Amino acid sequence: MQAVALLREDRALRLVEKPRPEPADGEVLVRTLSVGIDGSDRRLVDGEIGEFPEGEDHLVLGHEAVGVVENPNGTDLECGDFVVPLVRRPTGDAGDSVELDMAQPGTFVERGIFGAHGYMAEFFTSQPEYLVTVPESVADYGFFVEPASLVEKSLEQAFAARSAFDWSPSTALVLGNGNLGLLALARLADRPEFDRMYCLGRRGRPDPTIDFVEAVGGTYVDSRETPPEAIPETYEPIDFAFEATGYPNHSVEVPRALASNGVATLQGIPGSAETAIDIGEFHTDLVVENKALLGVVNSRSSHFEAAIEWLAETDPELLDTLVTGVFTPAAVDAAFADDDETMKTVVTFE
Amino acid sequence: MQAVALLREDRALRLVEKPRPEPADGEVLVRTLSVGIDGSDRRLVDGEIGEFPEGEDHLVLGHEAVGVVENPNGTDLECGDFVVPLVRRPTGDAGDSVELDMAQPGTFVERGIFGAHGYMAEFFTSQPEYLVTVPESVADYGFFVEPASLVEKSLEQAFAARSAFDWSPSTALVLGNGNLGLLALARLADRPEFDRMYCLGRRGRPDPTIDFVEAVGGTYVDSRETPPEAIPETYEPIDFAFEATGYPNHSVEVPRALASNGVATLQGIPGSAETAIDIGEFHTDLVVENKALLGVVNSRSSHFEAAIEWLAETDPELLDTLVTGVFTPAAVDAAFADDDETMKTVVTFE
Repeated sequence: MQAVALLREDRALRLVEKPRPEPADGEVLVRTLSVGIDGSDRRLVDGEIGEFPEGEDHLVLGHEAVGVVENPNGTDLECGDFVVPLVRRPTGDAGDSVELDMAQPGTFVERGIFGAHGYMAEFFTSQPEYLVTVPESVADYGFFVEPASLVEKSLEQAFAARSAFDWSPSTALVLGNGNLGLLALARLADRPEFDRMYCLGRRGRPDPTIDFVEAVGGTYVDSRETPPEAIPETYEPIDFAFEATGYPNHSVEVPRALASNGVATLQGIPGSAETAIDIGEFHTDLVVENKALLGVVNSRSSHFEAAIEWLAETDPELLDTLVTGVFTPAAVDAAFADDDETMKTVVTFE
Repeated sequence: MQAVALLREDRALRLVEKPRPEPADGEVLVRTLSVGIDGSDRRLVDGEIGEFPEGEDHLVLGHEAVGVVENPNGTDLECGDFVVPLVRRPTGDAGDSVELDMAQPGTFVERGIFGAHGYMAEFFTSQPEYLVTVPESVADYGFFVEPASLVEKSLEQAFAARSAFDWSPSTALVLGNGNLGLLALARLADRPEFDRMYCLGRRGRPDPTIDFVEAVGGTYVDSRETPPEAIPETYEPIDFAFEATGYPNHSVEVPRALASNGVATLQGIPGSAETAIDIGEFHTDLVVENKALLGVVNSRSSHFEAAIEWLAETDPELLDTLVTGVFTPAAVDAAFADDDETMKTVVTFE
């Protein structure tokens, strides 16, 4: 079968031929429909993150997948079921697999990212407890389930962190107009709490991402004119902020965009970056306004289910606007290319 | 009556004579028993924080008070009731007074700190909704209620922030062996979750604060040998950290002491301090280990009630160990002095 892989030796992105995997006892064989590409995939190719599977000379990429059960292999799944796979798998001592997203580093691999092959291949196998079924109506956009599940987890964590008092948020900010940022903005637009939403980017008009921001009712903020700390004065203080750029400085800048009692979630994984900051101001601002800053990584099946529920209710035309390219595995270089016109690109195996 | 005040003109700490306050309609007159002194009081004298009441040439200090109702003035309180006053008062648009600790800056004053006279005087007045009654057994140590209430709020916020998954903390760290840090450590010792506790200071033995740390079952960590980021390797990763020094760098250093899914609360209010830090590492560490960093300020009546409940069950001898000086108002300079032997000092009006 065909698979899109990153080669260990020269870190080249290649379409490779591999044997179709055989499901082990208790495993399901899934035929892949499509796989989304995100910033992590591009950073893997750039050598900034990731780890090859032990003893392997390549890593099959892809962690935002949707497929259809080809062989249920005696499990409770049925042939033809549409499924989306979770990313993490325990390596032995991760404990309860239900909350693998909160497991200790070193106790899991991440398929397509860290130590285990991903899903960007014609077929993959998985134990059924790491597959979440999706209705047929969602399968066309099933590659959005994994990134949307991260938004669900961030919202869950943020609201939990503000649950010990009477919190009534009305404003939200997404930092980043890449594919995760725009998806998050679309999600927030459907939450009843957020009357006004902002999306921070670093580009000017005309720009398709700015059009998308406005299509979902958001206000675009150009960070070159209005950095995060100027947002409260220029626009208004923010109750919930979702950081989706991985720009290292945002970790200390985003609390300045928050209202009293506000909460920001960080999702990016930047490299090392030494910077001089006013650490006393950062510290004091968090304290005197009861602000919360949360790191959020990965997601579990309940977040996948929440994401599926949202996608099932979302206008497919809006989701379609986000998809700026659907490529065959042979056109993988084009699929991984990224420019100002790129929102979400997808590799299809259909 | 006698009152301990900070004079606006030369920022001098003075015992002054003031008229006994007359309770307005709906207000109670309280006779002060004792008032604790903390880091905020000393920083007020040093001119680092605080604000004088509008139009006044002095600020009566004191926000950690316990007193006895002298004149209930038609309210539901009774003559002889022991009471502890809350610190914040709304100035008009703070909304619901129940959660004043979460109110927007600019919508409240803080008695004894920010824009309103405190309680370090023979008498004070207050509306009854800002007084929390304490049993007689707690009245002797009633000046601990306010600082202990901050620990209760921090614990509440920390556990709320970790409530969206199965969190089972077992280790705690207090940064700082001042009076708030030691009180927090004593509180944590009585929580069932924390099997092992650490307390970070910057002093060597012999030292009475180190003796106290060990008396409550904690392990003393000398930050000159083991800074926060070295704690996981030298000792073990920390599930809950309580920052009680106000050292600005701790805001970015304390997450490095945390275990995966750990949470740190900051309570200090440092001044401006520019420092070069690896902001990318700070950002990534929060994300990949799902860590939470919370600013926490002030507390509300439910936290006072939780603190009173804890103090009622706590060995008075242990609390007594913390009290290194009880002074009359006339000895206010000695009461505010601070050295390596000082833990909690108190001004008594009895």
